[in-house]
Amino acid sequence: MAGKKLSTDPYKGVRDFYPEDMYTLRYLFDTMSRVAESFGYSEYGASILEPSELYRSKTSEEIVSEQTYSFVDRGGREVTLRPEMTPTIARMVVARRMELPFPLRWYSIPNVFRYERSQRGRLREHYQLNVDLFGVPGLDAEVEMIMLASEVMKSFGATENDFEIRVSDRNLFTSIFDECNIPEDLRAHIMRLLDKKDKIENFEDALHELAPEYAKRFLELLSTVSGTVALETLIGRLKELGITNAVIDPSIVRGFDYYNGIVFEVYDTSPENSRALCGGGRYDNLLELFGIDSIPAIGFGMGDVRILDFLETHNLLPKYSAPADVFLCTLTEGAKEFAAALAKDMRANDVHVEVSLSNKKVGDQIKLADKKKIPFVICIGENEMRTGEMTIKHLASGKEAVVTKDTVADYVFSNIS
Amino acid sequence: MAGKKLSTDPYKGVRDFYPEDMYTLRYLFDTMSRVAESFGYSEYGASILEPSELYRSKTSEEIVSEQTYSFVDRGGREVTLRPEMTPTIARMVVARRMELPFPLRWYSIPNVFRYERSQRGRLREHYQLNVDLFGVPGLDAEVEMIMLASEVMKSFGATENDFEIRVSDRNLFTSIFDECNIPEDLRAHIMRLLDKKDKIENFEDALHELAPEYAKRFLELLSTVSGTVALETLIGRLKELGITNAVIDPSIVRGFDYYNGIVFEVYDTSPENSRALCGGGRYDNLLELFGIDSIPAIGFGMGDVRILDFLETHNLLPKYSAPADVFLCTLTEGAKEFAAALAKDMRANDVHVEVSLSNKKVGDQIKLADKKKIPFVICIGENEMRTGEMTIKHLASGKEAVVTKDTVADYVFSNIS
Repeated sequence: MAGKKLSTDPYKGVRDFYPEDMYTLRYLFDTMSRVAESFGYSEYGASILEPSELYRSKTSEEIVSEQTYSFVDRGGREVTLRPEMTPTIARMVVARRMELPFPLRWYSIPNVFRYERSQRGRLREHYQLNVDLFGVPGLDAEVEMIMLASEVMKSFGATENDFEIRVSDRNLFTSIFDECNIPEDLRAHIMRLLDKKDKIENFEDALHELAPEYAKRFLELLSTVSGTVALETLIGRLKELGITNAVIDPSIVRGFDYYNGIVFEVYDTSPENSRALCGGGRYDNLLELFGIDSIPAIGFGMGDVRILDFLETHNLLPKYSAPADVFLCTLTEGAKEFAAALAKDMRANDVHVEVSLSNKKVGDQIKLADKKKIPFVICIGENEMRTGEMTIKHLASGKEAVVTKDTVADYVFSNIS
Repeated sequence: MAGKKLSTDPYKGVRDFYPEDMYTLRYLFDTMSRVAESFGYSEYGASILEPSELYRSKTSEEIVSEQTYSFVDRGGREVTLRPEMTPTIARMVVARRMELPFPLRWYSIPNVFRYERSQRGRLREHYQLNVDLFGVPGLDAEVEMIMLASEVMKSFGATENDFEIRVSDRNLFTSIFDECNIPEDLRAHIMRLLDKKDKIENFEDALHELAPEYAKRFLELLSTVSGTVALETLIGRLKELGITNAVIDPSIVRGFDYYNGIVFEVYDTSPENSRALCGGGRYDNLLELFGIDSIPAIGFGMGDVRILDFLETHNLLPKYSAPADVFLCTLTEGAKEFAAALAKDMRANDVHVEVSLSNKKVGDQIKLADKKKIPFVICIGENEMRTGEMTIKHLASGKEAVVTKDTVADYVFSNIS
């Protein structure tokens, strides 16, 4: 097996998840799923591969033309690694709209791909909770969406002081655009510039460059804009439900072209991490792309990378816990066979057991259990095999007890922290 | 929004997972995870994007050159959608081999991609449980791997009559190859032909075509071959652990070039579905590709599509259950607001609640709950809002009871099936 040695690096801009990283990611996914399901949302899924045409019409043009992984397959089909999940859910809902139970509540935690330069919080692949509600035209839907997003944050242990919910309404801009007589084709460009406002050095200069005739008047009107009746009502209803950290912020616009009503973003209040943790809004007209009448729709996305940064900043990351409860050290001839059978019995009682299959000294086997963060060890030697009595030790406290194969499961359950 | 109407079809050869499909897939994943973790295996993960060079050396040449999704990214890097997980885990283990706790037990349930013609059970994208153990050179590792695979099958409700574990040893072929003087470069081709034996019309003709000088003698020796001492010992040890459906079958070879010892496959005993449900083996030399000394390694993969076929054939698919326990029908002005607050309280007690946000008649709201398979409904009208007393109804049995917001959670937990 000579020849060039392979690199162990992952592909540029993506992550390897070693067990402790995966544990954290799994905690994120499980928390998101639990909250979504507690609101009655059903999980759905789809392939990362989608026909490229799905993204051409309504996703931001910049994203499709410059930021997707797209290629032509061997059969001549243009295929894209999904950059976002909304077009996929729209496609699936339209395909079965005659049989699905509307109003429809769906969620998913897909990985999505963007081909862009890596920077903190913007990898080429990330995971994103997507929650969508179809068939509810009124403000009840906005209330539920924001309540759900807030509940996910609180389920991570965050308090209302740790994050802020900023709501806006795309209709605010429609009136400003109309008042400035800004032509239709320029509006989407201005919206995307507004969405990137915090990321660019001088927003006003950029706007003057993009729309020299209109920039001055637009900025004047933007500075005077306040909420709409819908936004005021929304904030009021959220307060009644105990959500007191929602504020109206007309500068929130969202990057996608398909939003047509209320939009919102969740921000970390910590100045170290001042980017949106979550964002969404109403997109009632997207489904028309498939040649059907519009279906009211609202949804949000919440990315894993930014949530991980948030949890780290606020000291909310979970502590790693090993999959195994008990490590069986094997000391003599025949101990591995004995341990395999014992482990089988213990697993039948829902105790997770790892059997030591190395030939290391007992001290080194115990050290390995400790390194793996397994809470209990039992050493199997000649005595234990003969008498069936074994000493179980809790490594963190040093506490020991004598158990048999019939009592070990109960002992573990009553002594595990 | 005029213009060409978009298709709602997914990309060719991949699947959409509507909620009931996703429920089944999630059941598969959860069962696989639970069993792997009960043996002390830790979950890991990685991106589907890998540098193409990772697959060039040891994956089957046929797979890399004809069956992968590979493309050149905008930065000129050759990238492949992973066709299998073993090269990825090998890469990750080698990268941190100095700090990882060996013997190492890892599992993952990645999606993998093959660009081939779609046929039953062979989609272009499928999910695959991967379980791997590094650092154990002896038969204890084989015993544990096969025991774990068997336990996954049993956790799906399968009995030993429903499936068979076929074991073989690649060393059997080494001796036949040596005896026939078959040159090194032809051996891998013969192995791959053997792996496809059941899929091609006339294996013997194909072998004569591939290796005209050696075919006759090879077939003679193949027909006389029996197990090795290692295989006999393995079968014996599995029997001691209560696994009685393992047999020696020298025709099992596995398709990947990197296997170097014992290999095994799990087969459905039903003649309708006679393809491998799961396969694996020892691959001690794969990690040398990264320029390090070899590390003993063994693992297996189990694909979702074939397992789903198996569960369907044996009537073992789980019954769908809705995410929500209770559906709150909203009948009058203010009921939606009342229900949103009630639902919040109920969720704080771990009851999953969906609030009806449509303006349909009560009968239609209840029909919707039934269609969504939500077990309980509560109708919120003026009386309920005034008195706080509500009637909860179990739709399947028609059983009703009066509850308040303080008693509803207990009622649901004690009456849910």
